Amino acid sequence: MSEQIRIAIDTIGGDNGPEVCVKGAVEGVKKNPNVKVYLTGHADELNKYLNNEDYDKDRIEVINATEEISLHETPVKAVQSKKDSSLVVAMNLVKEDKADAVISAGSSGAVLAGGQFIVGRAKGVKRAPLAPLIPTTGSPSLLIDCGANVDAKPEVLVQFAVMGSVYMESVMGIENPRVAIVNIGVEETKGNALVKSTIPLLKECKDINFIGSIEARDIPYAKADVILTEAFVGNVIIKLYEGLSKMILQEVKGAITSSVKSKIGGLLIKSSLLEMKSKFSASNKGGAPLLGLKGLVVKIHGNSKEAEVISAIDQCRAFVENDVSGKIVRGFEATED
Amino acid sequence: MSEQIRIAIDTIGGDNGPEVCVKGAVEGVKKNPNVKVYLTGHADELNKYLNNEDYDKDRIEVINATEEISLHETPVKAVQSKKDSSLVVAMNLVKEDKADAVISAGSSGAVLAGGQFIVGRAKGVKRAPLAPLIPTTGSPSLLIDCGANVDAKPEVLVQFAVMGSVYMESVMGIENPRVAIVNIGVEETKGNALVKSTIPLLKECKDINFIGSIEARDIPYAKADVILTEAFVGNVIIKLYEGLSKMILQEVKGAITSSVKSKIGGLLIKSSLLEMKSKFSASNKGGAPLLGLKGLVVKIHGNSKEAEVISAIDQCRAFVENDVSGKIVRGFEATED
Repeated sequence: MSEQIRIAIDTIGGDNGPEVCVKGAVEGVKKNPNVKVYLTGHADELNKYLNNEDYDKDRIEVINATEEISLHETPVKAVQSKKDSSLVVAMNLVKEDKADAVISAGSSGAVLAGGQFIVGRAKGVKRAPLAPLIPTTGSPSLLIDCGANVDAKPEVLVQFAVMGSVYMESVMGIENPRVAIVNIGVEETKGNALVKSTIPLLKECKDINFIGSIEARDIPYAKADVILTEAFVGNVIIKLYEGLSKMILQEVKGAITSSVKSKIGGLLIKSSLLEMKSKFSASNKGGAPLLGLKGLVVKIHGNSKEAEVISAIDQCRAFVENDVSGKIVRGFEATED
Repeated sequence: MSEQIRIAIDTIGGDNGPEVCVKGAVEGVKKNPNVKVYLTGHADELNKYLNNEDYDKDRIEVINATEEISLHETPVKAVQSKKDSSLVVAMNLVKEDKADAVISAGSSGAVLAGGQFIVGRAKGVKRAPLAPLIPTTGSPSLLIDCGANVDAKPEVLVQFAVMGSVYMESVMGIENPRVAIVNIGVEETKGNALVKSTIPLLKECKDINFIGSIEARDIPYAKADVILTEAFVGNVIIKLYEGLSKMILQEVKGAITSSVKSKIGGLLIKSSLLEMKSKFSASNKGGAPLLGLKGLVVKIHGNSKEAEVISAIDQCRAFVENDVSGKIVRGFEATED
């Protein structure tokens, strides 16, 4: 595809300030010759950082936006009232077809609200799910939905399964991705009312490779490519993944530094452990896409650094180049016929 | 309390065979002078193991039971039809007031079904929740409900909160235990329909110390003593805890054995790591109690060894001595007035 891919980056709201966005954008456009980046935020500050960088001036543009949305605001109200916030300005670029995708490290709630209300759902899409990649012993799995739509109905979950499959196939290059639904057992009789009503619909759905139920203990073992679940459960999974990994690695570190002997041992295994930790890191996998919208919205972690911004740019490029939105929409139009 | 505490142990169904139950029982009665144990299972085999042991013959009794319930059977059907299975025989002892508690390493489904249908719910109890202790950076937290009652109603969750509090106070010695409900955010507006309906009831409940919502990422950090949640979510939490800890510790082990240098380092930190691992082990915490029944039912892990059986005996003794069932029932009777 020779067309330019236009990505808006919301530079306010991340823990590490706008500088990581600027540096990420500079590297990102170097790496992806068909990408143009719009940086929304405090123009003076952004230009100050850009002045220190060597980059193609035609491919990074600053758009001034002065308001900030904090983590403590009610998301929907914030995106509706703060028209000059860096997030809303970035999302409006997609709405007005001046950009194809938005990347933000800001408040999850505001990113979800802005995605739904400013960018808007694509035709035929009932709900827009948030779908992060999670580390496993194999290649990462897509966890969908992860907090955008609690109490979703079975037919909504089926759409999520389709969107997740398209994403894993088109962006991650997984052929015929395996879809499994999170359940409390693998037998047919197991599940709550939602899961029991959803399974027959998943079996009937011809657009996915449904392999049945998955128990949570098997999620870290790469037993499925698309881990389908209702948003409340998905949110619990992603947050427990985060909290428990952090806690266990802290305990391992604590064990290593508990004596002189073990400290020496720790020095000898440090490089191997760091290699392992990088496998679990989100930095090389991009952010969590909010799927099913008229453009792509990518939520990156609040503490994202330059590497995460670059990965998210790669991710947006792959998403647009492979026409993931188009594939999703055409799939649902076909179903509606 | 001078009265004898009578515990039935189902010796069939665990991965390690009846021998670990026999050895656990022998040590358990030595440790707890007021405990009597009934071992249900193949009498010949049990007596063979007992003949090798030195123990008070009045305090360990074998009761023959020849049928076995496998993991592949439909639990309710199995406990109804296999009257001579070691699990059903053990539970009938409680039903007939010949025992106060049952310990089983057999199929979770069968233990839950037997608890509900044979032992039976105590007066005023709407549902009987399964409530394992989970490891944290501090003292363990009680996760309630963990798979027994999917799609529970708000008033059922409130009862779980009360039962969990009584257990943590009476058995684990935690004064005024903090109760938190699993949620997708800590703000009042967050949650699914169930959680939003349950929070006001928890606030009104005078028998508990309700501290609000807890996000899954904080569960490993000992932020609450009773982690309240609907069974589907609780099942996902306990199984992800299990799978993710196992996976991360395997990856750490893999990193340590990846080179000669790191292998030497591994030898130096081995004892510290083992100490850390034992903190996460269930062996010293007893099994998962099924609360709200006419007697105590404790589900221990399928791969339990002697140490887990001994801990479960301690747990049953503490439960009965502290009259946890009585406290629960009286609490609910008071509420009903």
